Amino acid sequence: MTATPYPVSARGPADHDVRDQIVAAATEHFSRYGYEKTAVSDLAKAIGFSKAYIYKFFESKQAIGEMICANCLREIEAEVNAAVADADSPPEKLRRLFRALTEASLRLFSHERKLYEIAASAATERWQAVIAYEESIRKLLREVLQQGRESGDFERKTPLDETTMAIYLVLRPYMNPLLLQHSFDHTESAPGLLSSLVLRSLSP
Amino acid sequence: MTATPYPVSARGPADHDVRDQIVAAATEHFSRYGYEKTAVSDLAKAIGFSKAYIYKFFESKQAIGEMICANCLREIEAEVNAAVADADSPPEKLRRLFRALTEASLRLFSHERKLYEIAASAATERWQAVIAYEESIRKLLREVLQQGRESGDFERKTPLDETTMAIYLVLRPYMNPLLLQHSFDHTESAPGLLSSLVLRSLSP
Repeated sequence: MTATPYPVSARGPADHDVRDQIVAAATEHFSRYGYEKTAVSDLAKAIGFSKAYIYKFFESKQAIGEMICANCLREIEAEVNAAVADADSPPEKLRRLFRALTEASLRLFSHERKLYEIAASAATERWQAVIAYEESIRKLLREVLQQGRESGDFERKTPLDETTMAIYLVLRPYMNPLLLQHSFDHTESAPGLLSSLVLRSLSP
Repeated sequence: MTATPYPVSARGPADHDVRDQIVAAATEHFSRYGYEKTAVSDLAKAIGFSKAYIYKFFESKQAIGEMICANCLREIEAEVNAAVADADSPPEKLRRLFRALTEASLRLFSHERKLYEIAASAATERWQAVIAYEESIRKLLREVLQQGRESGDFERKTPLDETTMAIYLVLRPYMNPLLLQHSFDHTESAPGLLSSLVLRSLSP
């Protein structure tokens, strides 16, 4: 690769556009043909770029997968944040969190079945995007709990970290794709049953 | 097969012994060489019976697998029952249930790694032994809850069936081998955190 005549700062946006373009095309391609079975050369051919050109922007197929995964998780996160923000009281926020997290995960990981492969690899190999996502959900949960403690809706005796982690464990089978795939029989009833149980555990 | 000269009632115990013998040998063999990859003919050869003789007692490899699976699940169940019976108060019984169920499942499904394959097939295909086992655990849980309601340790407002099902869902990732395999990071802390959360939810 020869150096471009433009200063680095001016190249950023253009590179960023090309990366987005590759990720969009790869998402489309993987969701049709699967992630595991597709090589970067197949992908390059399908989206009309050379393999070398793709490697200029992503060092591996996993790097593209990570970007797709990060986008998906950001989508779930945005949906859950919106559902929680939309409710007034902390108990209702908690109910919405359970419901929205299950529904968004279910839609992404079961309806777009081929993308499930990426999510499963990401969860198994603990990609950076997954760690960040889990951390965000715990943070959101902790904020709701904190608000409920301040409003007097929730008890304050149990250490906040302990409560947060315990409720996070209750949520896990409905947000982690590896567990969710074995929990389909319960996704209808679980958010209601579990958020009610959790709310009883939080009563002051 | 020619008919034996003995009346059916007299054959029962002997048949039972041979079945047990086949199951014991198959358990040993599968736990060393795996369940999926072993054919009935391999098994027959290894344990010194003819394939036809094995088929006299079991109609398929799965039938042998089901017996092994049922034995394993009965072992877990006995261990959990003993742990619960050993505690005096309903809250302590509930804590023991969480701890013993996780530990027994973990030991069986992770230490005896090759038998995990049978457990995974059983859970995926919902074999009869699995359904019966899950039902027993729910029944035990329900009894502990009922005792706690009678002793005044637990609240009585929530319908008992709802409470039982909600707590069962909390336990599921630590008793179902398909979920447990993705929950190893949490098996140390989960029984304590989750039983404490559940006990708070049960406070009258």
